[in-house]
Amino acid sequence: MSRLLREKKVITINETLSFGEKPVMIAGPCTIESYEQFYETAKGLKAIGVDVLRGGAFKPRTSPYAFQGLGEEGLEIMSRVGRELNIPVVSELMDETNLAMFENYVDILQVGSRNMYNYALLKVVGRTQKPVILKRGMSATIHEWIMAAEYIASHGNHNIILCERGIRTFDNYTRNTLDLTAVPIMKAETGLPVIVDPSHGTGRRELILPMSKAALACGADGLMVEVHYKPEEALCDGDQSLDLDMYREFYREVMSK
Amino acid sequence: MSRLLREKKVITINETLSFGEKPVMIAGPCTIESYEQFYETAKGLKAIGVDVLRGGAFKPRTSPYAFQGLGEEGLEIMSRVGRELNIPVVSELMDETNLAMFENYVDILQVGSRNMYNYALLKVVGRTQKPVILKRGMSATIHEWIMAAEYIASHGNHNIILCERGIRTFDNYTRNTLDLTAVPIMKAETGLPVIVDPSHGTGRRELILPMSKAALACGADGLMVEVHYKPEEALCDGDQSLDLDMYREFYREVMSK
Amino acid sequence: MSRLLREKKVITINETLSFGEKPVMIAGPCTIESYEQFYETAKGLKAIGVDVLRGGAFKPRTSPYAFQGLGEEGLEIMSRVGRELNIPVVSELMDETNLAMFENYVDILQVGSRNMYNYALLKVVGRTQKPVILKRGMSATIHEWIMAAEYIASHGNHNIILCERGIRTFDNYTRNTLDLTAVPIMKAETGLPVIVDPSHGTGRRELILPMSKAALACGADGLMVEVHYKPEEALCDGDQSLDLDMYREFYREVMSK
Amino acid sequence: MSRLLREKKVITINETLSFGEKPVMIAGPCTIESYEQFYETAKGLKAIGVDVLRGGAFKPRTSPYAFQGLGEEGLEIMSRVGRELNIPVVSELMDETNLAMFENYVDILQVGSRNMYNYALLKVVGRTQKPVILKRGMSATIHEWIMAAEYIASHGNHNIILCERGIRTFDNYTRNTLDLTAVPIMKAETGLPVIVDPSHGTGRRELILPMSKAALACGADGLMVEVHYKPEEALCDGDQSLDLDMYREFYREVMSK
Repeated sequence: MSRLLREKKVITINETLSFGEKPVMIAGPCTIESYEQFYETAKGLKAIGVDVLRGGAFKPRTSPYAFQGLGEEGLEIMSRVGRELNIPVVSELMDETNLAMFENYVDILQVGSRNMYNYALLKVVGRTQKPVILKRGMSATIHEWIMAAEYIASHGNHNIILCERGIRTFDNYTRNTLDLTAVPIMKAETGLPVIVDPSHGTGRRELILPMSKAALACGADGLMVEVHYKPEEALCDGDQSLDLDMYREFYREVMSK
Repeated sequence: MSRLLREKKVITINETLSFGEKPVMIAGPCTIESYEQFYETAKGLKAIGVDVLRGGAFKPRTSPYAFQGLGEEGLEIMSRVGRELNIPVVSELMDETNLAMFENYVDILQVGSRNMYNYALLKVVGRTQKPVILKRGMSATIHEWIMAAEYIASHGNHNIILCERGIRTFDNYTRNTLDLTAVPIMKAETGLPVIVDPSHGTGRRELILPMSKAALACGADGLMVEVHYKPEEALCDGDQSLDLDMYREFYREVMSK
Repeated sequence: MSRLLREKKVITINETLSFGEKPVMIAGPCTIESYEQFYETAKGLKAIGVDVLRGGAFKPRTSPYAFQGLGEEGLEIMSRVGRELNIPVVSELMDETNLAMFENYVDILQVGSRNMYNYALLKVVGRTQKPVILKRGMSATIHEWIMAAEYIASHGNHNIILCERGIRTFDNYTRNTLDLTAVPIMKAETGLPVIVDPSHGTGRRELILPMSKAALACGADGLMVEVHYKPEEALCDGDQSLDLDMYREFYREVMSK
Repeated sequence: MSRLLREKKVITINETLSFGEKPVMIAGPCTIESYEQFYETAKGLKAIGVDVLRGGAFKPRTSPYAFQGLGEEGLEIMSRVGRELNIPVVSELMDETNLAMFENYVDILQVGSRNMYNYALLKVVGRTQKPVILKRGMSATIHEWIMAAEYIASHGNHNIILCERGIRTFDNYTRNTLDLTAVPIMKAETGLPVIVDPSHGTGRRELILPMSKAALACGADGLMVEVHYKPEEALCDGDQSLDLDMYREFYREVMSK
């Protein structure tokens, strides 16, 4: 279905990191809360072997009254910690008018589920050359997701990483229904790397390890997991976050194959 | 669940048109294609009794290669025809950076299904005083839809009209599954007027009349229907569009109760 | 899609009751609990104008540990009350081996949502001449529902009444998502009468009236509503049941059009 | 949620086969078409290493006009081939009145997706001691699926094997949406073995291998795959069936870990 994105292509983050060889491990807290919180979490993750740090500065919250993130201050913290630890960082861009700010601070842009159909944002992101993680919309068909990637590619940016993060179904045992079949499908249809976010995909800590193993077994090129150095104090998604000890064990098990 | 939007409130479009008494009838083509097409369709609709003209200038198409609308030229046509026929006009705003342009040309802003979670757009729209039609996201829960309205209201704009347009389910006989129960629910939860779009809600011409009657019977405050003076030549959604004769009959039947 | 069920056909319950003229009003408790409960509820309903009494004797409960109904004793009560008040009765058949028992006691058989795909049951019911209410499966497509009716018809029984009772979607504000568009679709596709169950379709008392009005406005041939003489003491579905006073007012409003 | 099924328990098929050590490999055609077809397919599968043969004799077809299976003749063929090749066989029981017939011919009973809510059938199956494969209903929640198993267990039969086979969602790229997260969930909630059917779960031949690897990686105890010795001549599901050469390669890849 895709016109531009059929051939397999290596997506490179920097001189030492690209998708396709070993799984790219992305981790970090739901939200950047303070320098200390982000630095401590990041330092621990870097020591374990994580490749990319994640963290939200502008948060797409369902309620306008919920904490919306630290904004530019969060990006500054993220950028500083990334430089101090020499590790690339990714954060979600929600507002096209913030693009220049994001280009300043982050190595990878993220388009979240809620904005997968935000074609104005996709076009703007398509005009940069920053790598973009494009999450699947919560009820996006395979065709719509491919076409969202095509919006970015057709505006000039082919550095796209797709991220399956669960779809919305009738079931409510898990936060979303992780659709791992999307991994081999999207790889075949677009030639792009596909990563999986089991934290949002399941919303349950005990399911992150088995679903990560399954994701890699069917070809996922990386995993994005929520980790907080003190999950019980997290401002957002604490219940589904791993702490550093849990993540160390998780990393060991996932990489031991 | 809503904080600001509990009390019933009359939403006014202009000196002669407000929601709450008789159903507000909104009609027009999927896309503005030319002055002639929009003028001829509009003239016919005005004569039948339509209250507001609809038409797309910037179109949220799944594929970047599909016709994306005439853009500002479309809005100019719409505005000119609205003035010539003395009838308010509504069009969908997809890109927050186009707000000033839209404020110039249209009487009512529309936020489409794909952008219901686009909080940057909701905030911008919340800072104007133009009435806004807020369509339900294609898999938005009732709670999420209320909160999207709350994003607009909490930024200062309470002139919100909600529009049910069908949700995404397993069934594929119709284009979407029209969820009419949302009409009494959203009226009770927010006090805002709720209109129904049976054209997108069903995607089938023969279902527009029965579902419009049902919508009004459960309390809908208006109907938004796709009408094209020559559906067989329409660039978009021709199959679900009524022609002027069909709409005249439709209007008569719906209003005869 | 249907082979046998295209022509419109009058479905007759007895000498004085058939579908197609005025709405057929079916009401009664979720479960038959005792002679007193069923008789008192039924007497009240008959006085209001109800055409058919409903009540469960064998209940399809999700848990094997929940109350499963009075069984044959429930059917005996139902049959006796029906004769005493001279009003037809309907109850759900779950087990094909109980067919002879049901033929003894009830005027109309019901196949519930959970058994819409139970082809062994559909075939057995197809070999009787009792009218059958065939509820839509909770995630049945239009095509599957038509084919379930076709299973019954192709075994000889064309006395089928279809019942829309809500489908399963992502939304959880209501118990199910009432799909009223199914009413005009199924009437056109099969020629059979279609009734609506707003009690299960919404699971909320305050939505029963508006959705019943909507159902009739788009062509429904009848309504099936849960009524209990003392909802606060009901063994099952008390929260969505109307009491007799509420139902009297409901009946007046629905019939006043 | 389960009362009876919390403790992990070894489910045994015969003296040499039980669930829990290595993956139990179940394979065979959608439908038993003839002695030759079933014998040739079975002989090939046995040589590859398959543990259990599957094949339909009574088929739950959406349309009453589609081929319904060979019935008892199919079971006779299955039983004979099973004895000749010394390998257990499983087939789907749709009609409770056929239980005695099935007990005669098969080693494992299957309750299919369409009958997961057929409580009359679950109770009957609960009174035998044959192992039962209980497939998940196509829109069954985790809770409902557990309770369906509980119906069987509470009537005395604890020899239950759960089978995830895809759920019904909005997406239509695949036949169903395979919900692999159900594997670790159901194992934890019930202690029962959980197998996966990637043939029905995806409906696409090229997805069977990656999704089978993923299933085993997250803990599945076995795989049920459709194989036909001549898929292009299959009466049913030929497109999603593997042929014997494909299955040999599939088996090698899946088992090589």
